[in-house]
This record gives sequence, C-alpha cells and structure tokens, in this order.
Amino acid sequence: MPLPDRMMALVKREAAPGAELMEVPRPSPGPGEVLVKVRVASICGTDVHIYEWNEWAAGRVKSPLVFGHEFAGDVVALGPGADGLMVGDYVSAETHIICNQCYQCRTGQGHICRRCSIIGVDRPGTFAEYVALPAANVWPNPPDMPPEIASIQEPFGNAVDTVFAGDVTGKSFLVIGCGPIGLMAVGLLRASGAHPVIASDLSEYRLDLARRMGADIVLDAGARDVVAETLAETGGEGVDAVLEMSGARVALKQAVAVARNGGRISVLGLPPGAVEFDVSPFVFKGLTLQGITGRRMFDTWYRTRAILSSGRVDLGRVITHTFPLTSFKEAFALAESGLCGKIVLTL
Amino acid sequence: MPLPDRMMALVKREAAPGAELMEVPRPSPGPGEVLVKVRVASICGTDVHIYEWNEWAAGRVKSPLVFGHEFAGDVVALGPGADGLMVGDYVSAETHIICNQCYQCRTGQGHICRRCSIIGVDRPGTFAEYVALPAANVWPNPPDMPPEIASIQEPFGNAVDTVFAGDVTGKSFLVIGCGPIGLMAVGLLRASGAHPVIASDLSEYRLDLARRMGADIVLDAGARDVVAETLAETGGEGVDAVLEMSGARVALKQAVAVARNGGRISVLGLPPGAVEFDVSPFVFKGLTLQGITGRRMFDTWYRTRAILSSGRVDLGRVITHTFPLTSFKEAFALAESGLCGKIVLTL
Amino acid sequence: MPLPDRMMALVKREAAPGAELMEVPRPSPGPGEVLVKVRVASICGTDVHIYEWNEWAAGRVKSPLVFGHEFAGDVVALGPGADGLMVGDYVSAETHIICNQCYQCRTGQGHICRRCSIIGVDRPGTFAEYVALPAANVWPNPPDMPPEIASIQEPFGNAVDTVFAGDVTGKSFLVIGCGPIGLMAVGLLRASGAHPVIASDLSEYRLDLARRMGADIVLDAGARDVVAETLAETGGEGVDAVLEMSGARVALKQAVAVARNGGRISVLGLPPGAVEFDVSPFVFKGLTLQGITGRRMFDTWYRTRAILSSGRVDLGRVITHTFPLTSFKEAFALAESGLCGKIVLTL
Amino acid sequence: MPLPDRMMALVKREAAPGAELMEVPRPSPGPGEVLVKVRVASICGTDVHIYEWNEWAAGRVKSPLVFGHEFAGDVVALGPGADGLMVGDYVSAETHIICNQCYQCRTGQGHICRRCSIIGVDRPGTFAEYVALPAANVWPNPPDMPPEIASIQEPFGNAVDTVFAGDVTGKSFLVIGCGPIGLMAVGLLRASGAHPVIASDLSEYRLDLARRMGADIVLDAGARDVVAETLAETGGEGVDAVLEMSGARVALKQAVAVARNGGRISVLGLPPGAVEFDVSPFVFKGLTLQGITGRRMFDTWYRTRAILSSGRVDLGRVITHTFPLTSFKEAFALAESGLCGKIVLTL
Repeated sequence: MPLPDRMMALVKREAAPGAELMEVPRPSPGPGEVLVKVRVASICGTDVHIYEWNEWAAGRVKSPLVFGHEFAGDVVALGPGADGLMVGDYVSAETHIICNQCYQCRTGQGHICRRCSIIGVDRPGTFAEYVALPAANVWPNPPDMPPEIASIQEPFGNAVDTVFAGDVTGKSFLVIGCGPIGLMAVGLLRASGAHPVIASDLSEYRLDLARRMGADIVLDAGARDVVAETLAETGGEGVDAVLEMSGARVALKQAVAVARNGGRISVLGLPPGAVEFDVSPFVFKGLTLQGITGRRMFDTWYRTRAILSSGRVDLGRVITHTFPLTSFKEAFALAESGLCGKIVLTL
Repeated sequence: MPLPDRMMALVKREAAPGAELMEVPRPSPGPGEVLVKVRVASICGTDVHIYEWNEWAAGRVKSPLVFGHEFAGDVVALGPGADGLMVGDYVSAETHIICNQCYQCRTGQGHICRRCSIIGVDRPGTFAEYVALPAANVWPNPPDMPPEIASIQEPFGNAVDTVFAGDVTGKSFLVIGCGPIGLMAVGLLRASGAHPVIASDLSEYRLDLARRMGADIVLDAGARDVVAETLAETGGEGVDAVLEMSGARVALKQAVAVARNGGRISVLGLPPGAVEFDVSPFVFKGLTLQGITGRRMFDTWYRTRAILSSGRVDLGRVITHTFPLTSFKEAFALAESGLCGKIVLTL
Repeated sequence: MPLPDRMMALVKREAAPGAELMEVPRPSPGPGEVLVKVRVASICGTDVHIYEWNEWAAGRVKSPLVFGHEFAGDVVALGPGADGLMVGDYVSAETHIICNQCYQCRTGQGHICRRCSIIGVDRPGTFAEYVALPAANVWPNPPDMPPEIASIQEPFGNAVDTVFAGDVTGKSFLVIGCGPIGLMAVGLLRASGAHPVIASDLSEYRLDLARRMGADIVLDAGARDVVAETLAETGGEGVDAVLEMSGARVALKQAVAVARNGGRISVLGLPPGAVEFDVSPFVFKGLTLQGITGRRMFDTWYRTRAILSSGRVDLGRVITHTFPLTSFKEAFALAESGLCGKIVLTL
Repeated sequence: MPLPDRMMALVKREAAPGAELMEVPRPSPGPGEVLVKVRVASICGTDVHIYEWNEWAAGRVKSPLVFGHEFAGDVVALGPGADGLMVGDYVSAETHIICNQCYQCRTGQGHICRRCSIIGVDRPGTFAEYVALPAANVWPNPPDMPPEIASIQEPFGNAVDTVFAGDVTGKSFLVIGCGPIGLMAVGLLRASGAHPVIASDLSEYRLDLARRMGADIVLDAGARDVVAETLAETGGEGVDAVLEMSGARVALKQAVAVARNGGRISVLGLPPGAVEFDVSPFVFKGLTLQGITGRRMFDTWYRTRAILSSGRVDLGRVITHTFPLTSFKEAFALAESGLCGKIVLTL
C-alpha cells in the first residue's frame, strides 16, 4: 500500500501561543533516515513551552514547525543507507541528533554534543502521522511493550540519568518536584532500594501520585517546611542526595540546606533566570552539584530497557490521561493545569 | 545483679577437629572495651573451618579458643574509656579489629588493615554467654530488629560490598554459589533492581532458597551448563557482573566465560589452593577482577542498616534453622551438609 | 631542661581588628595530646580574616585567642595516652580536629565532620612558642624537610584535593586566583602533566609567580578578557576543569563560561555573600560543581608527602617572605597588600 | 599526478615464518574510507608474532596479508562519503575497526567491541606504500609532529590507558617489563608525578632506557629479587599499582606480592597460556586486576595529543633504531633480540 503524500500534524504555525492541527506534506526519509508511522506521542514540558511560546521557545524555535518528540511507532520506509532496521520494526527514538564529530561525541559523551539538534524543536517532530528520523537515533522496542510506555522511555531516561548520577541503594533522597519525570524518579528510587524516598511538590494531586509510585514520605511544599521536615526525617543528618526536578527558584536553596555533608545535588529542573546562590555551604559541606542533560547514548537506553523488562517500575501509573491528537487543546490545557501526570496523545 | 564469674562457651580446645561446650572464666572488658551478654550467635563458614580444623584453621588459630563472631546481644558492662555506649544497649559488632595506625586505616580503608585481628579467630569470640569487644567495633541495633537478623548483619555486609562494587540497577548478574552470603546477595540484587539475576549452585535445596530470595533464573551447576545457559539468557552478550561466592575451582573460569566485554567479576569465595588462570580473556575482554574483603568500616554498616530498615530485603528467609548452643554438634553437622541456609544458635 | 611556664604568643585580645604579642601561660598537653615547640608558623588567609576581624571572624572566633594553624615544630612533651609519637619528633599537623563519632567521620570523610573544631580558630593556635594538639592530628615530617616547607603542607593539601577532584594529566585547566594555594595548584598541575595550565589574577606580582610555578599562560584579569582568551587558547572548546581559588564574585560566572561541556568546576574560594547564579548552563553543558573542604584525613597528607618527596613541585618558590614573629605587623600588612606569595613567621 | 597502480609492501605470503617484500596492487579507498601514503611505520610486538608465525598468529591471520598497523602518512584520496578529511591531511590512525552496532560500541566502549577487526591483522596493513582505512579511524596529527612520533602514538595510547586506569600522581608504581610500551609508561608516570617509579626487566639494555625515561629505580629481574626490593623501596607497604607489560609467567605472582592492600594490577602483557593463580591474596588484600585493551576511542587519542603537545614526555627516547622498509629482515631480527626500544621503518 503506497504511503499518502500528505498527513495530519500539530503545527506551531506562527511565533505566538497556540498550535494548529492541519494537513501538511508527509516527510520522506533522507540518507541514513527512516520514516516512522506514529502510534502515540506524549507531551513533554518542552512541548508546553512551545505551545505557550515562552521566552525560551521564542528564542529557539523557528515556525512553522511540527513539534513533539516523545513517541512510539512503526518503521514504514527506509532512506538510502539506513542500516540495521527493517520496515515493520516497532520503535521509539533518542530525540537528540548529534554531530558525531565533536570532542564530546568522540568520547562517549554525545548527550552533551556541542552541535546537537532536537527532534520537534529544531526539526519536524512527532505530533504527526509520520516522522523522519536518523536510523542511528532509533531504538527498537520489545514487541510486547505498550506504545504509551514505549513513548515515555525518553523522559524516563532523564529520570534514570538523574537518579544514577551517584549511589542509590540504601541512600536517602529528596525529590523536589513531582511532575512526570519526578514521579518516574520516585518509582525508580523505590525499585532500586533507596530509603527513605521523600518527595515534595505544591500539588496534592501530584503528591498523591508520588505516594503511589512508592515515596516513603510526601511533603506539600505549600503547607510544610520542606527543609525542616527532611532534616527531621533523617535524624538531622540530611539526605544523601537531592534530585531537583521542579525548576522552582527556591529549590536550590532547599537542596543545599537538606543535603548531608558530602551529599550530591543532581539538577534537571530549570528555574526561569538566575537565582541567588551562596557558594559557602558547597565548600563547607563538601557538596557536589551536577547538571543532568538528556540521556547517555545509549547507555541510558539499555539500562531503561533492562529496568522496564524487570517489571519493577510501573510507568503506567505515571500516565494519567490519554487523548486523541484532535483533542490537543484539551490536552495542553490539562498539562498547563498541573492536575495530571503524563499525557499521551494517540494518532 | 552482679555478673557471674564463669560462663558457658563453645571452645576449640585442642588443635584437632571438633569443639567442646564447657565452663570458662567470664571475660572482663579492658580499656576501651565493653562486655556484651550474647542473645544469639550465628554460624559462619569460617566457624565450620575452625570446627573441622582445616588447613587454614590449623595455620591461624591458637587453641584453646572460644570461637564464633556473628552475634546480637546487650551491653552489660563498660571498660574504662569505652565512650559512646551505655549498659543496656542492644548491639552487634564489626568483627575486624583494626590497628588505626597503618596507611589503610588512616585513609578510610580499615577493612584491609595490615594488622587486623578477628573476633573468634584471633581472640575470644561469641559462641559464649559473654564476649568483650572494643567499643569502636560495636554497632547499635534498632530496638525492633529481631536478634537473629541483627546477628547476620555482619555477613550481609559482605554481600553488600560484593554487590555494590559496581553498578547494579538494570544490570545483569550471575551469582555463583548460594550459601548464606550468596542468598543474601540475590535478595539484595532483587531489591536493587538488578535484572536478570541468575544464580547457580550444586544444591537443589539452596537453589530453591535462591528462587525464594528473588532470583529470576536458577541453574543447577551439576546438571546444567552454567556458561551456555547464562550466555543464552543474555542473548549471547554475557552478564554485566559475576559475583563469585562459591570457592569452587571452576568458578573463575565460568566467570570469565560469562562476563560481558567490560564486565566485572567480584570475588568473595576462596578456592582451596591455586587455580589455572588464563590472563588473555581479561585483556581481550577488558574485564575487572575485584577481591572483596570484610565490610567497609562503617560505610557498609550504615548502608546495611538503611537497606534493612526499608524492609525490602527479607533476610529472615535466609535463616533456615535455629538451635540452642547446647545442640552445637547437630548444628555444625547440618552446616557441613549444605542442606541449610543460615543457622542461628541461641544462648 | 624543664619547660618554661609562660611563653610569647600572638593573641587576638579583643573583638576588634589587630593582635597583640604578649606573654601567656604555656599550654599543657591533655589526654591524647602532645605539646609541640613551634619552629615556624605560616600565615593563611584565615589568619588575615581574624587579624582584620571581618564578619566571618566576628561571628566565629571567641577572643582572647592565640591564633595561627600552619606550622612545623618538635614534640617536647606527651600527654597521657598520646600513642605513636615520641619527644623529639619533628612534626606538622592536620588542623581540623574531628569528632570520630558522626557519619562522616565513621565513613572515611572526616574532612567534612559535622562537629569539627579548628586549631587557631576554635582553640589555641600556633602563632606561639608552644601549642598543644591531639596526637591523632600530628603528622611526622621527613627529617630533611625544611620547616617552612613542612609548615605549608597544610594549605598544599587544599591544593592537592582541589586539583585531584577529577582527571588531571593531559587535561586543560584554568586556575582563577593566584594566591598561595592557587600558586601551589599551578605547580602541582605542572608536575602532574596537565596541559595547558592557564592562570588568572588581578595582580601582576602573583601572575609572575604563577609563571614561575609553571603556568603555560597567565591572564591579567584586570586587563584581559579571561573568558574569551581561555576559550581561544582551547580552540573554542573550553577547559576540562576550572579551579576557583579567588573568592571573586565574578569567578563562578567565568568558570561556567569557560568550562567544556561535561567539565568540572572545583571551588575552594569563598565570595563574600551570595552571587547570581544561572543554573541552566549547568544543565545544558552537563557541568559538575564541587565544593572542596580541608584535606582528606589522611589520604591527602600521604599524597602530599609522596609528591614533595619526588622533588617535582618546588613549594619554596611560593614562599616569598619570612619574618620573625615579633614583626607580625609588617607581615600582616604585607599579606593584606597581596604583593606576596606565602609569608612565614619564625619563632 | 595519478597514483600508481601497484606498490611495494611487506607481505606475510604463506602460513610460515618470515615475510616477503614484493609488489602488490595498490588498495583503493572504499565507501567511507581514505587512502593514505605511508611515510613511516613502526614495529609492534604483534608484528613480530606475525613475522615469527607463533601460535596466536597461525590461529588468527589469513595469508597472504600485508601486515603492520602503526604508521604516519598523508591522505592522498578519499572514498565516497569519507567526511571530515581532505587530501593532504597528515594523519595516523586507530587500528581497531569497530562495528558501531554492539552494546559496547553504543555505550562508549568501542575499544572492547565484540566484532572488532584490526588493521594489519584482519585486513591489509601499513608496511606498504599505501593503505586504505575508514575515515572514522583516522586521527589528524599536528603538522609539526615528527612522523616517527606520530606513528607510535598508537602504542603510546596503550600506555596511557594502562597508567590512567587508576590514580597516578603521588602514587608508587612497579612497571614489569620495559619493552616499548613499558618504557612509554615509565615516561608517562614520570611526567604525571608518580613516585617512586620502579621498573623491572631482564635486559640491562632496556633498564638503561627505563632509567633515561625517568624511572626512579630499575631492577634487573634476572639478578635481583623484584618482590623483596620493591617492598623494601616502599617501606614494606607495597606499591599502589603494578603495570604488567611483560607477559612473563611469573609477573602476576610478583604483582600480587608487591601490591599494597587495596592496590591495583593493570595488565597489558599476555603470558603464553594459563598461569597458576592464587585467588586468596586478591580477597585478603582487597586487590583489583584490570585487563587493558587497545585505546579508548577516542578519549585516549585526545589525551595522548594533549600530553605530547605539552612536551613533557619525550617519546623520541623510546625510538632506538630506524631502518628503510627494505631492511625489514635486519629490523625484525633486532626486534626479536630485545636489544632495542621501538624500531621505525621508513618508506
């Protein structure tokens, strides 16, 4: 059956808030690329930024653009030289396309490539019936993995890298921020024997999800003193590690206050603009701050696969809502409300 | 109530197999020591070697000696300068007494102290109503920890150090040897998100325990080809890590054959005498071999406490038999048979 | 020959700037302590803060106090239970006195002990004819090590820990701040095969010293664009590591800008108060920030000894001035001027 | 100027000792390959094995084959899709051609690729006027690097990986075996601040070279007790690390005996066949054994470049002889005698 020439896609049409579901030409796979028919695509915070057209999006994204980058689908065509894949393969993908030439790429650190471009940000994305991708970015899924789980392997990879940037089992944690990646981190910490796992957020809805993902203690950051309670829960010692996944301006200050002497602070969340930062506790307490970027290619993906195949992290619990792509307005409104975990769009 | 002057103890009386339950003088705590009334003591492989009087024991142990080193009990007296403890404290202990002067001790590596002496091997041990110990070695137990669990924290520490000598979560493992420490390692791997966890042993009894501790796959090394099956279970890739806990002469050869390129082999088991060893796979596969000694003082103990307090490793399943100390002959006969997990003696 | 009852010492007499050279009672060594007759003592930035009575000093130091903590001298008396040392031993000392009871102390991280007290800050120090110290803190010096070199092993240890908090040989470095510890770091980087070693400071005097310690490139931060030139010197890539030893408010911003993707920023310098800090480059570049505290006990001291005994770092070049203790006013005025490297006081 | 159709090359013509210098067809660069005109090629131990046709060579090499793999030369033609290089580039190359598909390749561990083929072993090599190579393997040389130095960057990379498999500066080392890579390791240890650096070999000629590369102590293994003297030189403590580069059957036993508790043994040398191996010191001393393979791609190459550009390791001292390719018989006879460092062939 020949592929259609045109397809439906969610397009950021102008440099302004919103998006439009419209018919556009179907992409063709170039050299080394494959064409994937998308089954599901999930909504990331980055997508919300593009939808809302915040400062970052306005500075980076060139409209018009099909956005979206998390997905699962099926290979339907191969471009020339697209090795190692076959039509019919059930796949997801690493969304960072790297240069393979810079120091970072040539030393196993492609996740911090200096010339990285991102699917759905710098080139057409996955909120569409079809997407063309480099074969080198494609990740084969186990046949029995539900597509909504396969789609969120990519953000789960962020959680994996943040959690495993240091020791985990038998170590105490505070996770600041219970958005989808924070929730995944909680589930992963639970499955990896961290103890205790403390999670904080401003939303009761999300704290309830954190509890269900296995948090030992949840703290409503609006009503409780996160620093004092975390210290109390650890006998005054502080936690071995803080995972900052909120982007809240106060988060770094909390992290420094609750980290044990010698502890680590792993940061995935981005506050809007600069924050006040006191260097001295870093020196006096011997702390380490790590910025976490993307997912290691492809260590993280192998590890993610093994963890999911063990069945010990139930990512399904993080997915709270599913909409058809045509209901994208409802989906994005819900994402902006925060009264949700992960939202999946079906095509 | 004054303490009695004499006590019952299991004594290696002569340089020959066996042991004798007899009355001996109660020890007194010296400077920096405490006296502990023993509630339970558990049997280690080392104790069996001393009981059987094998070559190692004959070369190291000076009879007469009260042996045994794993235990839980209560502090009943303090020697001069024994700081930080009180009569009534419920405790177990690190059994390696270190010099605090050598390079290793002064650099946080006391577990490989060059002048270490061991409780129940080089000085009187815990198969007795009372034992005197340095306060610095004593480890306070949570009040609600059952004494038989508290007693086996010490060998559990060996499992902790062997398992965490490298990455664990989402990594594949072969555990060679399902004696008590191997079984503990299996439980710990399970609680830490390792996958798959493969365990091998010659004893169906022990493989059944391994299954109950959470092994994904168990291999009867007498009936099955451990190397071929481990490779098959990992798609031909081999495992990320091998934990050698059997002391079998063939174990190292198996380990090298099943370790993935770049894998690790962590060794706690001691084969009798030298083995044939082919260096070339280490070089060609880029393998690492690590000898594991004792428990890190006191990193391992803190981690052990946190893991047990999380409730995710059920060490109780490793304990298969309990005897009064007076039935020591029956207990040691059972330990020699291998038809057991951990054996606990009550006092 | 009996020891005198009184001695000369430099005393912070009141909660105000300055200090007084006066006669005070000679200390006696308590249990586990030794008494040392001081040959030389060197001036640390901390001593200048106490002399000037800045905000930190006013908040921490209780006058009257004999201050000073870097020194070399000879053991002249042993308190009860001071093991492992003899009268006549030629020694220096680790200046952090730790509790040996907290989590950090019991896990080989005594350098970040939660209940640390510091010689010359929290108890009488070394700007005096005699000082009493815990035997556990004393470090024996090689007999042929000049006392002024022995005295500055302690700050050299800070340089060692900052430099070796990551890879060194064949890696590129920017050292921000060429005070004595910065200069030592430069010499150490040179002796360890780092390349290139770039050093920045506002003082031509200190940049000249940096050149003599082996810096490949020196940048006058007042006249040159440190960020642009560092990037140019590394082909636009940035440096593998930044060592921040200046405490300048702009340093952290420079560090983030010149660190290579995946680089490390090791911080010993303390800016006065909070700085503006943009988290996003940490995340996007995958950077690590490490606070460095004191010296590892006693890994750092062993390493320091081995490096100095190799003869490949000439610490003598860092020492630019020597004064008798009686000329302390001149010495502190010089230290405040910045027209010096390390200043040594003789007794 | 058109390239000639035929070229001179050193060919292993039959499955037997020796080699023949003969005219063969010039290779053409395939897709993704470049053609290099060889200026110099240096002789590796592997080449000697192929020349001698030892057991390993007979099992692996298919004759006829142009052998040799270390070289420096100039790109003279590009195959289709050979990106990032230009005719005229002055280059050397990584000699392991990897699959880019296996777990190791996709996780930054291409040096232990499971489907690696080697230039001059599995495909035509560099003892020839021209060689065709994958562009991805080519490493651009600084224009001012002498070709004989550029040629031996490849084995220097082995030394780099062996040396930096653990801490170096201020650490004590025994290097067993002073062939070319052992000598390079000695120079590198010296430039990296290791101390003391002890080197052993059976050949006075090579020990003299080791002294010139910067060894603090050299031990004639035929006349001296390497274990006893190494222990004596380290005050009985043992060395922090042993680098085994001899392939001698006794080397591993020596290594275990002289390694400090907690030390590392990094192995590059391959003894012929299995050796007797006693596991117990590994466990009791807490030792680590690491097999070292090839060079990390391309971390090692970047590090090698930085070290050489610093000028602190003089690799020229390792090169003791240079011959025209036509004198290959003399060159191989010398290589077999051991009375040489590195031998370079010019074309």
